[in-house]
Amino acid sequence: MKPTGPIPPYFEARDGELAIGGLTASALVKKAGDTPLFVYSKDAIVARMGELREALPEKVRIHYAMKANPYGPLLEMMADLVDGLDIASGGELAQARNAGYLPREISFAGPGKRDDELLTAIRAGVIINLESENEARRALDIGRTLDVAPRLAIRVNPEFELRGSGMKMGGGAKPFGVDADRVPALARELVESGANWRGFHIYSGSQSLDAEAIVESQANVIALSSQLAKDAGVDVPHLNMGGGFGIPYFDKDSRLDLTIIGDGLAEQLVNLPSNLAETDFALELGRYLVGEAGVYLTRIVDRKVSHGTTYLITDGGLHHQLAASGNFGTVVRRNYPIAVANRWDEDAAETVNVVGCLCTPLDRLGDQVLLPMAEIGDLIAVFCAGAYGASASPAEFLGQGPALERLV
Amino acid sequence: MKPTGPIPPYFEARDGELAIGGLTASALVKKAGDTPLFVYSKDAIVARMGELREALPEKVRIHYAMKANPYGPLLEMMADLVDGLDIASGGELAQARNAGYLPREISFAGPGKRDDELLTAIRAGVIINLESENEARRALDIGRTLDVAPRLAIRVNPEFELRGSGMKMGGGAKPFGVDADRVPALARELVESGANWRGFHIYSGSQSLDAEAIVESQANVIALSSQLAKDAGVDVPHLNMGGGFGIPYFDKDSRLDLTIIGDGLAEQLVNLPSNLAETDFALELGRYLVGEAGVYLTRIVDRKVSHGTTYLITDGGLHHQLAASGNFGTVVRRNYPIAVANRWDEDAAETVNVVGCLCTPLDRLGDQVLLPMAEIGDLIAVFCAGAYGASASPAEFLGQGPALERLV
Repeated sequence: MKPTGPIPPYFEARDGELAIGGLTASALVKKAGDTPLFVYSKDAIVARMGELREALPEKVRIHYAMKANPYGPLLEMMADLVDGLDIASGGELAQARNAGYLPREISFAGPGKRDDELLTAIRAGVIINLESENEARRALDIGRTLDVAPRLAIRVNPEFELRGSGMKMGGGAKPFGVDADRVPALARELVESGANWRGFHIYSGSQSLDAEAIVESQANVIALSSQLAKDAGVDVPHLNMGGGFGIPYFDKDSRLDLTIIGDGLAEQLVNLPSNLAETDFALELGRYLVGEAGVYLTRIVDRKVSHGTTYLITDGGLHHQLAASGNFGTVVRRNYPIAVANRWDEDAAETVNVVGCLCTPLDRLGDQVLLPMAEIGDLIAVFCAGAYGASASPAEFLGQGPALERLV
Repeated sequence: MKPTGPIPPYFEARDGELAIGGLTASALVKKAGDTPLFVYSKDAIVARMGELREALPEKVRIHYAMKANPYGPLLEMMADLVDGLDIASGGELAQARNAGYLPREISFAGPGKRDDELLTAIRAGVIINLESENEARRALDIGRTLDVAPRLAIRVNPEFELRGSGMKMGGGAKPFGVDADRVPALARELVESGANWRGFHIYSGSQSLDAEAIVESQANVIALSSQLAKDAGVDVPHLNMGGGFGIPYFDKDSRLDLTIIGDGLAEQLVNLPSNLAETDFALELGRYLVGEAGVYLTRIVDRKVSHGTTYLITDGGLHHQLAASGNFGTVVRRNYPIAVANRWDEDAAETVNVVGCLCTPLDRLGDQVLLPMAEIGDLIAVFCAGAYGASASPAEFLGQGPALERLV
């Protein structure tokens, strides 16, 4: 038996089943019409936002990084909850506009922005987080062509990184942002060129469960911004401090202590360097806002035994849940939280392998997991499916096509 | 500097550029209208099929495993070249029918076949490679409902595995197939139930570059089939011997020696067990037929230096080339063959990191690769992009969308 990750605290039982938004898993599937089905819980997202607003200083703006989950209804819902939206492509800009976001609420980061993407974003009035001197020149050129002052910020590649981060986004050579030592000259150039100067974007890592490390990183971000602004002789209208807030996916993962982060930020904000006194501060969160709100429901289509090992074979798989299968930036596969959704209150009875329907040994949803005795037709729930699930998986692989998605 | 894999031998130079099907990379992109672009070479596929037909005994049928590349025009082309098609889902069946394949040429394997997929396939007359006793009962039930004798074979989970295989598909507990010791009883049951008994499917591994190991595995497959048929008291109309033929992706990978495989198979076929004298033998190949025929062309949109490291940032990335980025079933990332397509005859001049446009450190196409001096606007070619590329990557990630594809 191998351990599974912790089931997020946002779900309830009803009629012996996992329930989301007041409906049982069976009812959700019946209503949607088929499996596999991603269900995203409004209540869980609202609760998570409430926790954040409660813990963080009022002054800190919360942005949604839509790369985590661009599902239309969810994106629309987030518009009422957050203070800004972070996009990573022209495609995401189009989705954001469709969901009702105003361009002035949007900022655009990403190391490979094409000219047509820059043009559309600058024309709309989106903030561009510039990733290189070359991109800065292209943005300024486009601004001149359009006869508008582009809203420009610099993404800084800092010397420090977020300790304990699942993905390092800063420190040493990186494709992201401009090396800190070259930022002051570029910032001056932007201001002198008549751009609408917006400040800095500094992202030092993601998926950290260590609150102290996040506080330390935020202090570093503030100090670096202040120093860069002083060296450049510019002000900092806006500072995107990045994110990095992790969620527990695996056994022994601890839950992030928001109180430590909130207290740390509050202390930093009352002791701000004088040149940041007028700065707007924003956190850019994706996974942390929606990751635990999502559940992937997939039906068992076969139950078989091979050499004494029981397999539950589902109609879903890595084509919808690449990260959960252990095939997306993972060295050692571990089990996400997993359950039999329609036997929510039954005791665990057997150790099984839960696999997807794809004809590849990579397609694993649960390795040697202890579950209630499950039958063909039962529903498997894979948790922490709200971020980097549907849109970060190869839906067309083996002719399968995308899963259904619902916000409830 | 890190090594890159070997560029496949099917491409030529023209006007100083990589050329495919007589057109330069620049011309191909201009004609297609945009990058990123997958180009699949008809000539390379025809050449590969010629090598196989030359090396293998005439009696051996070659099937195409369309999971490797389901691009419509390529699928249509393969229909004229191969002797059968292997599918892995109802979605692939629909694509195959659209491409003109006849159901009698098609066989369907996959551990999680849904009832609706079985129904459609059985009604059409496709061979079902049964993966479990339960699936066998479901298929028989559906046959009775439709009042047809379903064409059924058993996928066997063998005790042996293909040595040196990139992906082990046999040996020990597996979600694929029926354990060999339970196959005879099931085969008898199928024959007695009035099914149209088609024989066995035995797949012991994939992506092997060791011809001796493949010969050994084929000998094992033949011996096991003969024994299972004898134990069951049935004949073997058809034997799908699996595939396993690998292509060289990485530095020091050797090219598979087809002569060894052909000679080995020829010897086995003249010394067949008597109960396989009337059997049709088929190899199921996907990657080996089309993998080296494909090139992924992506344009450089930025060139930047961070802490002394030069990055070429492209408009493509892992959303089209998940495996090449090192994020699909890979423990240690290595470089696929890569080149600057429009500077094909220029000398290597600098060591660079080639990355995709996605805002994630996972998006790497070439790590510390030695290339000619490249500029913004140049075209990067990533080779071995013909199999498990476009359809096995998360195209919608970060709002990017699919790449263009062309068969030339």
